[in-house]
Amino acid sequence: MFDIIQYAITADSIMKAGRFLYSQGWSPATSSNYSARIDDGHIAITVSGRHKGELIAGDVMVVDLEGRAVQSQARASAETRLHTVLYRMFPDVGAVLHTHSVKATVLSRAIPPGAPLLLQGYELQKAFSGVDTHENTLTVPVFDNTQDIDALAEQVRQWFTDHPEQPGYVIRGHGLYTWGKTMTDCLRHIEAFEFLFDCELETMRARQ
Amino acid sequence: MFDIIQYAITADSIMKAGRFLYSQGWSPATSSNYSARIDDGHIAITVSGRHKGELIAGDVMVVDLEGRAVQSQARASAETRLHTVLYRMFPDVGAVLHTHSVKATVLSRAIPPGAPLLLQGYELQKAFSGVDTHENTLTVPVFDNTQDIDALAEQVRQWFTDHPEQPGYVIRGHGLYTWGKTMTDCLRHIEAFEFLFDCELETMRARQ
Amino acid sequence: MFDIIQYAITADSIMKAGRFLYSQGWSPATSSNYSARIDDGHIAITVSGRHKGELIAGDVMVVDLEGRAVQSQARASAETRLHTVLYRMFPDVGAVLHTHSVKATVLSRAIPPGAPLLLQGYELQKAFSGVDTHENTLTVPVFDNTQDIDALAEQVRQWFTDHPEQPGYVIRGHGLYTWGKTMTDCLRHIEAFEFLFDCELETMRARQ
Amino acid sequence: MFDIIQYAITADSIMKAGRFLYSQGWSPATSSNYSARIDDGHIAITVSGRHKGELIAGDVMVVDLEGRAVQSQARASAETRLHTVLYRMFPDVGAVLHTHSVKATVLSRAIPPGAPLLLQGYELQKAFSGVDTHENTLTVPVFDNTQDIDALAEQVRQWFTDHPEQPGYVIRGHGLYTWGKTMTDCLRHIEAFEFLFDCELETMRARQ
Repeated sequence: MFDIIQYAITADSIMKAGRFLYSQGWSPATSSNYSARIDDGHIAITVSGRHKGELIAGDVMVVDLEGRAVQSQARASAETRLHTVLYRMFPDVGAVLHTHSVKATVLSRAIPPGAPLLLQGYELQKAFSGVDTHENTLTVPVFDNTQDIDALAEQVRQWFTDHPEQPGYVIRGHGLYTWGKTMTDCLRHIEAFEFLFDCELETMRARQ
Repeated sequence: MFDIIQYAITADSIMKAGRFLYSQGWSPATSSNYSARIDDGHIAITVSGRHKGELIAGDVMVVDLEGRAVQSQARASAETRLHTVLYRMFPDVGAVLHTHSVKATVLSRAIPPGAPLLLQGYELQKAFSGVDTHENTLTVPVFDNTQDIDALAEQVRQWFTDHPEQPGYVIRGHGLYTWGKTMTDCLRHIEAFEFLFDCELETMRARQ
Repeated sequence: MFDIIQYAITADSIMKAGRFLYSQGWSPATSSNYSARIDDGHIAITVSGRHKGELIAGDVMVVDLEGRAVQSQARASAETRLHTVLYRMFPDVGAVLHTHSVKATVLSRAIPPGAPLLLQGYELQKAFSGVDTHENTLTVPVFDNTQDIDALAEQVRQWFTDHPEQPGYVIRGHGLYTWGKTMTDCLRHIEAFEFLFDCELETMRARQ
Repeated sequence: MFDIIQYAITADSIMKAGRFLYSQGWSPATSSNYSARIDDGHIAITVSGRHKGELIAGDVMVVDLEGRAVQSQARASAETRLHTVLYRMFPDVGAVLHTHSVKATVLSRAIPPGAPLLLQGYELQKAFSGVDTHENTLTVPVFDNTQDIDALAEQVRQWFTDHPEQPGYVIRGHGLYTWGKTMTDCLRHIEAFEFLFDCELETMRARQ
């Protein structure tokens, strides 16, 4: 059993995040899914297929760490396990956001298969928790898109077991996953990633 | 005769859609026209030449499935028949939206004459009703612009008779037509198309 | 003498236009100037150097058709004569708007000296009063920027005496001038020009 | 000691500036810092790490001209000395804004090491105080990014001692610093710089 007040607060933080992320154009056409931790065993997560800029009561359900619906008949997103794998790996993660921007989509398709996106020399890298200089290299793995979510979740688990300090990844032609201790941290990470993706695409064009 | 309450509700959904579509920059300078089904024989549609971000009572008229004005002296758009041809072909279509974005305009002019736009490998293809994997190919026909709307309507009828599962088309230098069972579905289709057009243009630039 | 109520209504239409144009990013950093006709001999026009998104009472003055301040010590823009030359040439012009967008600036600098911008095949050309097909060619002259406003006003007068049906021009590295019978017409022209400038720049990039 | 009412007014101008600058996308992910002069010896400046679009009471502290906190335990930004060096050099400077846009970041990385950004022929150069023709050349130095803020502050001091009429500089991969007699002047400078950066990047792409 979980604390119902904690669910309400957590669901509210997800609804607010949705209004912001949709307004930025990063969650169009009912794409994306968002989650936040209620307690050690419960996660609040968006119900599949909802308009992310208009999330209301009824659009946020509860799942356990295996991704099974708790006290609800609502259908969780097919990608729920991409959220729960992170909560299981990292006990201090409090929020996971998956967005779906034009920049992340285009950039992930422009990167050669097997190669990660490497970001270096940007002051904004310091927006990621634990980074204190622009001289570090941020490594963002690019996983191929697939309808086999369990296999992808396992890929994510393996990669981040080896690189626990990296703050996110992209799926080719699909979008960004990032996380943080709090929803505020996680939203800052999204803003930083989207900024950096935009810079990388602008740079590709400027140096042709 | 048609139900007047149904007209009022339908007209309201069109006015709300207009405020959204104009705010996105997809219906500038009084371009675009929008419609929604009232019943088997009647369609609500925007009056010609109105500001799409400021639609008010008086800006949505009623036409029959031949595109003739019903109970009104208002002038329907010259493109009304591009709406009615779809309602006649597809009895479950409830809304048709025609928008006019920079991306659709530029992309449609960049595609060689006679070739369709092919979209593949984008997760967001799943935003279209009936598509459940990014591995499908979305085929978007590009028709040449013309002032002969009856001829264009006939082209549309023939192409979609052969491809009833495809969700929209573009007119070169002119814009997008898409439709759906409900206004909500149709707006989701527009967001998905505009996202995909943006991705295609960004990709053209990034890979030059 | 002019009707003071007519001044107040005209000034209000200018303030509203400013809020819209600034919100679109077309009048940054106190650039641009806007005017509207009060009567045959009087024009309301923005005072020099004001924030165009925050125009308030006191930011719109009156000038005569020679550009001289009427009943006011306020300083009219140095470019006032670029407005009055149009009101003198075209008695049915009711509003003149000069904006200063990134797209107009960059495009005007990319066009070879002496050549006009030619726009053809865009459905949105029909947004200009009197144009009823996309098959027409819209000719937008590009004048070199200069601090000699009287000389530029004379260039404008000569060019539009020969081409009275064309709806606007650009100054290289500086921005757009367009006009219309009413403020509503003139705002529609700006939206259409900005759309077309955006299309032209996007096309330049896509076809490289 | 400083006047507490003057602090409150100054802090308010900083909070308002933040809401504007964040809304433009120029201060994402808690980047940027803003300051304004309280009196000859005191500066109001944003506390490190705050969300710039949501600045509230408690997010603006006071420092002296050496950058030391006054009457507060809050932590000033590591870049505080980049602000105070300007207030010491130029007694008539009333506000300093540091922003962090995609355009400034990308452009500063595209410019060869050691070279400044030169801007010429843009009408909007006249938005900078003291510039009255587009024929001038605006020289914007590009300093390499570093975590050694004292060394960078000294570079800034030396360059602007030789070029006191120039209104700003950029740090590579990091952002813009600009200033003005008032917050209004300084915000106008930012709008003008961002406009010009956007033009330069668009031009790079259009002429490839």
